[in-house]
Amino acid sequence: MVKIVALIKRKPGMSREEFSHYWATVHGPLAVGPAGPPAVQRYTHTDWLLQPDGTPAPFDGVAEMWFDDRPGLQACLDHFLGEAGTPLRDDMAQFVDMDSVIMFVGEERVVKS
Amino acid sequence: MVKIVALIKRKPGMSREEFSHYWATVHGPLAVGPAGPPAVQRYTHTDWLLQPDGTPAPFDGVAEMWFDDRPGLQACLDHFLGEAGTPLRDDMAQFVDMDSVIMFVGEERVVKS
Repeated sequence: MVKIVALIKRKPGMSREEFSHYWATVHGPLAVGPAGPPAVQRYTHTDWLLQPDGTPAPFDGVAEMWFDDRPGLQACLDHFLGEAGTPLRDDMAQFVDMDSVIMFVGEERVVKS
Repeated sequence: MVKIVALIKRKPGMSREEFSHYWATVHGPLAVGPAGPPAVQRYTHTDWLLQPDGTPAPFDGVAEMWFDDRPGLQACLDHFLGEAGTPLRDDMAQFVDMDSVIMFVGEERVVKS
């Protein structure tokens, strides 16, 4: 499958708890509702990030979306980055430091399932 | 589930094709063989990373490992970072820029499955 990965940091001044709560209870449901992008087969949040030594990671969260094919992934990007994605992007700005978002696409290989 | 995420860059001088080939055909099988860590429920590579505008991402790959619980995740980390992990780490150094690895653990929330 192909996927979109976004590495995000919480908005300055927000606690980890506030960030996690908003992401889980407001942004997640919005993203899978009518305002959300098309063609998404699977969508996860990875939260409460720590480095192996217990210190904070350089990001607060990883969002991942999986697609059956490249056209589906592109339709999602076009939605999110275009006019239709304004509500989602505006909502993201409520809890994410938008200037530090790292977003990329890639091909996933399942080594063990 | 809980997971380990590693953001990796290829070894300087290696092409994307060489990196991808080594990761898929040598390191992946090694990691799920007898030298690999315990307790891993799922293991994926995300490869051929590009930013939405088509330019290279700041990483070449994302490795992810999922676990049923924290003790399983910790057993994997202990294996990988300890003496038992030497073959795996040595192999990783064949295709990965080890100084730039970003590794963290987190809790995954499935928003859409």
